[in-house]
Amino acid sequence: MSLADLSAAELSALHDDLTAQYADLKAAGLKLDLTRGKPSAEQLDLSAELLSLPGPDRTTDASGTDVRNYGNLQGLREIREIFGELLGIGPDQLIAADNSSLSIMHDSLVFALLHGRPGGDPWSGQQVKVLCPTPGYDRHFALSQELGFELVPVDLTADGPDLETIKKLVADDPQIKAIWVVPTYANPNGAVYSEEITRELVSMPTAAEDFTLLWDNAYAVHHLTDSEITPVDVLGLAAAAGNADRVFVYASSSKISFAGAGVSFFGGSPSVVDWYLAHLAKRTIGPDKINQLRHALYLKNADGVRDLMRKHRAIIGPKFEAVQRILTERLGDRDVATWTEPQGGYFISLDVAEGTATEVVRLAKEAGIALTPAGSAYPYGRDPGDRNIRIAPTFPPLPQVTAAIDGLATCVLLAAVAKLRQ
Amino acid sequence: MSLADLSAAELSALHDDLTAQYADLKAAGLKLDLTRGKPSAEQLDLSAELLSLPGPDRTTDASGTDVRNYGNLQGLREIREIFGELLGIGPDQLIAADNSSLSIMHDSLVFALLHGRPGGDPWSGQQVKVLCPTPGYDRHFALSQELGFELVPVDLTADGPDLETIKKLVADDPQIKAIWVVPTYANPNGAVYSEEITRELVSMPTAAEDFTLLWDNAYAVHHLTDSEITPVDVLGLAAAAGNADRVFVYASSSKISFAGAGVSFFGGSPSVVDWYLAHLAKRTIGPDKINQLRHALYLKNADGVRDLMRKHRAIIGPKFEAVQRILTERLGDRDVATWTEPQGGYFISLDVAEGTATEVVRLAKEAGIALTPAGSAYPYGRDPGDRNIRIAPTFPPLPQVTAAIDGLATCVLLAAVAKLRQ
Repeated sequence: MSLADLSAAELSALHDDLTAQYADLKAAGLKLDLTRGKPSAEQLDLSAELLSLPGPDRTTDASGTDVRNYGNLQGLREIREIFGELLGIGPDQLIAADNSSLSIMHDSLVFALLHGRPGGDPWSGQQVKVLCPTPGYDRHFALSQELGFELVPVDLTADGPDLETIKKLVADDPQIKAIWVVPTYANPNGAVYSEEITRELVSMPTAAEDFTLLWDNAYAVHHLTDSEITPVDVLGLAAAAGNADRVFVYASSSKISFAGAGVSFFGGSPSVVDWYLAHLAKRTIGPDKINQLRHALYLKNADGVRDLMRKHRAIIGPKFEAVQRILTERLGDRDVATWTEPQGGYFISLDVAEGTATEVVRLAKEAGIALTPAGSAYPYGRDPGDRNIRIAPTFPPLPQVTAAIDGLATCVLLAAVAKLRQ
Repeated sequence: MSLADLSAAELSALHDDLTAQYADLKAAGLKLDLTRGKPSAEQLDLSAELLSLPGPDRTTDASGTDVRNYGNLQGLREIREIFGELLGIGPDQLIAADNSSLSIMHDSLVFALLHGRPGGDPWSGQQVKVLCPTPGYDRHFALSQELGFELVPVDLTADGPDLETIKKLVADDPQIKAIWVVPTYANPNGAVYSEEITRELVSMPTAAEDFTLLWDNAYAVHHLTDSEITPVDVLGLAAAAGNADRVFVYASSSKISFAGAGVSFFGGSPSVVDWYLAHLAKRTIGPDKINQLRHALYLKNADGVRDLMRKHRAIIGPKFEAVQRILTERLGDRDVATWTEPQGGYFISLDVAEGTATEVVRLAKEAGIALTPAGSAYPYGRDPGDRNIRIAPTFPPLPQVTAAIDGLATCVLLAAVAKLRQ
């Protein structure tokens, strides 16, 4: 029954019941962590073969070049071909780098700050603003702040961003230089940007001539259902709209192979790729090509990646299902919370009773359940409704996920009832 | 006999002789490359074991943490301990990163530009000048230019830099924010900065409060003689002088294990390390810890590195000796060239007759011998005497080194004689 329909006496009884449940929870001495989108050890074990590759006799890439020595700034062609097919981007328009696409985001924005984008002025010396569809990825926001950008929130639902607001803002304000986009299974609410939305984003008029889509396709192949959606051809659509240089594409194998030792990618128009390489050449002589060869030998081709991702799904799918089941059982008829049912990616976005997210996170923490701080998915950590909590269920084993979500549900209800009784 | 002592007729005869030698050289159709300080395939083969490590059963570091997952921004303690001992720096004052110390130089300078050093103002918005002991490393200069710094050359001999000039410049000019130093076996002239010189550099008064020694100890363990010098304790000396934060230390395993897939290091005072990590945290979640574990398992300890470097020396030592022998035989009594006899590192610095370096490089190129462009070792590529040529003998096999240096000597003599006859 909805909490709103309960009498004061019923609410008081429920509060007593929940208080007792919460005491039991604390007494259980849990130590559970739902904070970060990390793969589990079981997932990492899938790629054990990587740990012995390339092997003692394999020192050259497909072109015959020694991968152990300096050089090849753009990275191995064979790994760019594999990920190019998965991302819908030709290998010439991709750069393969070291672990961590976040680093490429940092560097490409630093290059824009210090030198300007292709044909543009340096962003430094201007107050740059960046649109942040929210809820969004806290590291995008932290990086933007680090570089002195002002964060401008715009709403993102599971169906996509608030396009009308975005179009109006970018048309009017030349200081708005960029927008963060996680186009596939967005962190944290699982939103998927359709081809229609993408077409609008690449073609919309912008007051800033060097407006940039920061297209972080971190979860392009991270499906949780049989409907394995194909990435939108964002570079092709941008070129067709006459804005070929508008898009910076980021991706990585971090949640495909190893989270700390994968290969990351940068994509863009030919002139954007040339621009990035020209600045990158001052920063490094080349990426870790042995790791790229290691990945190419292990993954073999795009289908090798697709097969591997189905094995990941077999491990993490039941965790996502457990979250859905428990949240439905515990909160489904209470009208105090809503949550997303993502078709892929690494997160579930939970909205609790207004004004209680901070309290829920505090209660959970005291019961040994670590959650990302309330508001993390919002610019400056400010969730105006204090409602949003990001759930990352991949890392803990299934029984721990189950225990943590059940405990979390208790905290959600206890905070909501306490607020209603105020 | 010295060229200067030859009569016009003798000079003419020598010119004819050299012209014939050069024609033979061109006819030989060589294709030799002395441009870059790259290890040879034989050197890379020394570390073949790395290509199968860490192996399928090793997924944790010494602390028991899974190296395959995210995290550990400072890098594996065991690899910091090995290189800390070699560099004379405690592991807490070292950060272990991915391949390429050039990247760390870039990032630390970007952090100084955008945010300021610990306690200092951002360098952006000021005209920053950086002292460049010359001849020096072209990539240091290119990186400095990329970041908008003005390059100020100061002389560097094999005995060290022109300290009096440096001290006067840094005392007077607050825009001078840094000096590049390759303290051990400098690129290209093999200079070694003594403890006494180091003490002066860390203690000299500077007009800029945030003056920085960019201490690129790229060749700390790259000895070519039995005299394996120990790195000066630059951080200890700086702290003792009351300038603990003055030094940024850079190093890498690029020319120890694999040039494209090693581990790089950043060192500094505790507050410099904290400052670097705070900004790095916005750029990445952590380095490639598997590669760090791979290196720790392979190298084992500091003595493992020292043993490996002796194997490198056995391969490249004869190449350096061949260069010395041929240059002495061909140019020793001609008074047209001087060159360094480095005790370590990767280069020999050759000074030819004034005003002929560009011509020598051109002649060599036409004969199929690729050299770094004349002037490369000078800021803006401007060698005021047009004299300096950098020789990098490590990469080609010994017979090719011999052929290339012999051909180069012909070019040096031909250009010198032609100039004398003008």
